[in-house]
Amino acid sequence: MVKHTPGGYNGKILRIDLTTTKISVEIPDEGFYRKHLGGAGFIFHFLQREMDQGADPLGPNNKLIFALGPLTGIPLSGSGRNCVGAKSPLTNGITKSEAGEFWGAELKRAGYDAIIVEGKAEKPVYIWIHDGEAYIRDATHLWGKNTKETQQEIRSELGDRLIRVALIGPAGENLVRFACIMHGLYDAAGRGGLGAVMGSKNLKAIAVRGHSIQRIADREPIKALRHWLAANMHLVKVFHEFGTGDAMSAFETVGNLPVRNFRDGLFPTVSKIDARTIRNSIRIGMDACFACTVRCKKMVQVKEPYSVDPSYGGPEYETLASLGSNCGVDNLEAIAKANELCGAYSLDTISTGSVISFAMECFENGLLKITDTDGVELRFGNATAMLRCIELITRREGIGNLLAEGTVKAALEIGSGANEFAVQVKGLEAGMHEPRLKLAHGLGFMVNPHGADHSCNLHDTMYEAPGEWRVKEAQHFGLSAPLPADEIGPDKVALFKFVHLRQLLMDSLLLCNFLPYNLEQVTDLLAAVTGWDTSAMELIRISERNITTARLFNIREGFTAADDQLPQRFFTPKTDGPLSDKPLDPVKFEHAKRNYYILMGWDENTGVPLPEKVAELGIF
Amino acid sequence: MVKHTPGGYNGKILRIDLTTTKISVEIPDEGFYRKHLGGAGFIFHFLQREMDQGADPLGPNNKLIFALGPLTGIPLSGSGRNCVGAKSPLTNGITKSEAGEFWGAELKRAGYDAIIVEGKAEKPVYIWIHDGEAYIRDATHLWGKNTKETQQEIRSELGDRLIRVALIGPAGENLVRFACIMHGLYDAAGRGGLGAVMGSKNLKAIAVRGHSIQRIADREPIKALRHWLAANMHLVKVFHEFGTGDAMSAFETVGNLPVRNFRDGLFPTVSKIDARTIRNSIRIGMDACFACTVRCKKMVQVKEPYSVDPSYGGPEYETLASLGSNCGVDNLEAIAKANELCGAYSLDTISTGSVISFAMECFENGLLKITDTDGVELRFGNATAMLRCIELITRREGIGNLLAEGTVKAALEIGSGANEFAVQVKGLEAGMHEPRLKLAHGLGFMVNPHGADHSCNLHDTMYEAPGEWRVKEAQHFGLSAPLPADEIGPDKVALFKFVHLRQLLMDSLLLCNFLPYNLEQVTDLLAAVTGWDTSAMELIRISERNITTARLFNIREGFTAADDQLPQRFFTPKTDGPLSDKPLDPVKFEHAKRNYYILMGWDENTGVPLPEKVAELGIF
Repeated sequence: MVKHTPGGYNGKILRIDLTTTKISVEIPDEGFYRKHLGGAGFIFHFLQREMDQGADPLGPNNKLIFALGPLTGIPLSGSGRNCVGAKSPLTNGITKSEAGEFWGAELKRAGYDAIIVEGKAEKPVYIWIHDGEAYIRDATHLWGKNTKETQQEIRSELGDRLIRVALIGPAGENLVRFACIMHGLYDAAGRGGLGAVMGSKNLKAIAVRGHSIQRIADREPIKALRHWLAANMHLVKVFHEFGTGDAMSAFETVGNLPVRNFRDGLFPTVSKIDARTIRNSIRIGMDACFACTVRCKKMVQVKEPYSVDPSYGGPEYETLASLGSNCGVDNLEAIAKANELCGAYSLDTISTGSVISFAMECFENGLLKITDTDGVELRFGNATAMLRCIELITRREGIGNLLAEGTVKAALEIGSGANEFAVQVKGLEAGMHEPRLKLAHGLGFMVNPHGADHSCNLHDTMYEAPGEWRVKEAQHFGLSAPLPADEIGPDKVALFKFVHLRQLLMDSLLLCNFLPYNLEQVTDLLAAVTGWDTSAMELIRISERNITTARLFNIREGFTAADDQLPQRFFTPKTDGPLSDKPLDPVKFEHAKRNYYILMGWDENTGVPLPEKVAELGIF
Repeated sequence: MVKHTPGGYNGKILRIDLTTTKISVEIPDEGFYRKHLGGAGFIFHFLQREMDQGADPLGPNNKLIFALGPLTGIPLSGSGRNCVGAKSPLTNGITKSEAGEFWGAELKRAGYDAIIVEGKAEKPVYIWIHDGEAYIRDATHLWGKNTKETQQEIRSELGDRLIRVALIGPAGENLVRFACIMHGLYDAAGRGGLGAVMGSKNLKAIAVRGHSIQRIADREPIKALRHWLAANMHLVKVFHEFGTGDAMSAFETVGNLPVRNFRDGLFPTVSKIDARTIRNSIRIGMDACFACTVRCKKMVQVKEPYSVDPSYGGPEYETLASLGSNCGVDNLEAIAKANELCGAYSLDTISTGSVISFAMECFENGLLKITDTDGVELRFGNATAMLRCIELITRREGIGNLLAEGTVKAALEIGSGANEFAVQVKGLEAGMHEPRLKLAHGLGFMVNPHGADHSCNLHDTMYEAPGEWRVKEAQHFGLSAPLPADEIGPDKVALFKFVHLRQLLMDSLLLCNFLPYNLEQVTDLLAAVTGWDTSAMELIRISERNITTARLFNIREGFTAADDQLPQRFFTPKTDGPLSDKPLDPVKFEHAKRNYYILMGWDENTGVPLPEKVAELGIF
């Protein structure tokens, strides 16, 4: 059972050293919980505070942290999320990524708010957490298996089909630097190579099951918000009907859709792969994360020409773009198959698609020869080659062993200017929205501590017609919104700063960004759960502390302002389409970066947080 | 009647050019009101936006602004306040000061939120505002008269004894640089020489009377807060029982009481002049500002040895210290008389007492001779000399003409190191709390845009046992409180920044700082009045904008970081008492200043707001 201090809100953190097999429980006080909240807040704090400089991301000194937030597992749509973080094997900096599903809610019921995994097991193991008890169990028999088999076997051997499992497939085991951690079979903590960190620790899975009732100070406001959402389902209608990816044709029209490694603009067959087409073709249903009425997750089934197991769900927008248009592929069945393989092997679909599109461009430009690719014609649009690559990457065979290192390392190996085709920041392959269209999105790619994460996609506020409440939130931060997408002046930087802080807040509380709750509702929700008399001001300050904490981690690892740099691709115009005359202006982005540093209280030239700001934020 | 945009909250601003006698009405939209709120927010905005660089504070190009806040005049204790501002003849920078009484509430009922007075009348005039109509009326017959006579005559000639009057006496007319603007006979917009600005415009008074009903979006929360206060009157018990100045003996014990121009620590006869003694001797009652149940205003009557007219109220703490212990005077009747004279003549009691104590120290050190003072023995403790000085200053006679210029100009004239005795910042004489005891208070003196204002006294939060809600507010700003008084490290600077922002918020909303409402209650109150769905975060950002706006004004006037400088006195130990071994450390204060600049987004060396911060705050 979760133990609280009398009258207060706190909980337990599980620390597991796989080297020594020592398992311990920490019970930070309420002040700690209020200062860091959970999720990304916990992860950044622990990594910054506890890790030594220079640790090998794939060595035993890395720490892999799973952290829930105070809102994880409450009976409300959007609460089925948890955050995972570590030092990234892709960026060598701090990273974190969120997943949906039911795992987080189950861990909360098992009595924990976070798990800190340290060290490295001698042989493959999995962790089993059951109503407050934690066990390290042998996983030798599971090693090498895909995620579906692994989940089935764990449930079977523990005798409970409602066990929730966070786990890796062969890609994680083989230390593919962009392996993800699956939560169930179709929710991934995708970005930054967390699956490789898990693999490096010989940790196959964390299985959880719990029955304790979450302590909530006041359930009434949660109920009221449920009713509010029920009455306002039109706000999430698109997600409810299509999941993500309904607007791909519109994206192509305005230039937001990445095409052929972000090189081109036009993709006339886009409608073959969008979520509207999926609904009318391969879709067999929709599924949801814990407690969620939005049900945005597509279930698909394909029999010909590929057999796609419906257990792995269907492709999200980021997948449709990265393994579709960005590889020049308009074959929906192939994308669905690729999505299934990524789920089975635990590969991040974004980085996987990006690495392949990078390789395709290298191939088309003669930097990779047919002899390098074991005979695979790695050309844009070649769906078979794409699927083949996924297999090779997972097993680190042939060209796959090179690509498994991620675009930056692969480009370095290939040489001859291949780095011009590496569309990444800090080593993390870019998410599937176009910075040449939405400039603040580019700034997000640039300065985000873990690289060009798709979660930097701030277009709702910056670009598309914003909801009234987003205008209101900006006003509360003293800003005007909306602003045009195609500028990156001081007003936009200020708005970006706020939206970025807000986003990180959601990743600390843990609440899904697809839900239309405004900051006031979120604050009230936190108050209802914890009993804290808190405010939006306090919560945004916590995010400010968190981003600066992440910055301090990266600086300790040797990052400088030069690492906040967009790839050359975005300073080049697209070959066709509406942005064919709109490369980004590097001078403007240097100004924007400096501007952002100033607003964050970081040195305007070096980006190092000023000690005065660090003190104000109470980081120690 | 106040005109609102449909469904929105806004109001009218009256602009009066005394040179041309043009009277106009401006109706800014709701967005303007929400951005600037009112009070100090309006004043800083208009002065920064409209005034030319280098205007003579006592010339026609200065603008004198009276501004209410959205909370002025609501039916709640603490709402009877308004703010007045201009370019200061003492500092040559921006200044503002607040007053209580009923004038603000009456102006609101007359239909205006602010009055901007420009130009200079050819001959003495007063302004009469009556239910939305404004008139410029002859005041030749009032010129030279004290405030009581003036108020009586205006009420009499306009035929309404409920008219409220903001006005000056002879000190304002004679351009004494620290003349104040009285609101009625015992509430002053005291600091910065606003009375001299009024005098320089040949403006004797602004009389107001109104009958319109203030539009309030929702009266229920106001009613609820009234009930809350009624149930929590113990929080203001001391003010209710004694007014200000009950703790003077305790102040002397810990070293907080200024004694003999901040030179000494001990003042053994302090209990002769404190508010507890006043209650048991010369006090004949208590009075209140508009709507206020606290009733903190002492009414006193003295017959011997001086006749003190009870119409002018009794001395507040700042007066008891500045014209009492800081002049070495422990004669309560003399202080009461001095207070009466300052009210009658419209002199700021703080600067008046400070100028006199400065002169006393000069005299005792031989920098002023008996020949300079027309035979007045200007020694510490000489109550008669003090009273004489007030007369001389008001009429600018003899030594009074020198002292009427304020300590900085007087010291310059006297020379021979007299500036060591000028206890001021930027030209404004220091308020009556000891920075050598409360270091953040010293930082406030140092960086406050209008100098060493007594409203920088932040000891409640910084030093004395803080109320639980103050700790909570600090937590919402991500800070810990309380902190010890005797340090000025980064944590303290961060806390100071927040408390200073909060204070300025009260001066923009207009709510009395003596009331125990917390930031959450204040936010709810503003929402109730305006119908805005606002937040503490938005309000604190507005204060951030306001302070930076004031900074920009001062920089345009040539201020530099060197003007954010404490006087030498505070870097010298007291001669006796508990702080006789505790001078301030100038190095620490230079660090604190730089630290504060950084947290404000100003250049760390020059203190100039960075353009990026200015853009974020939306100042234009």
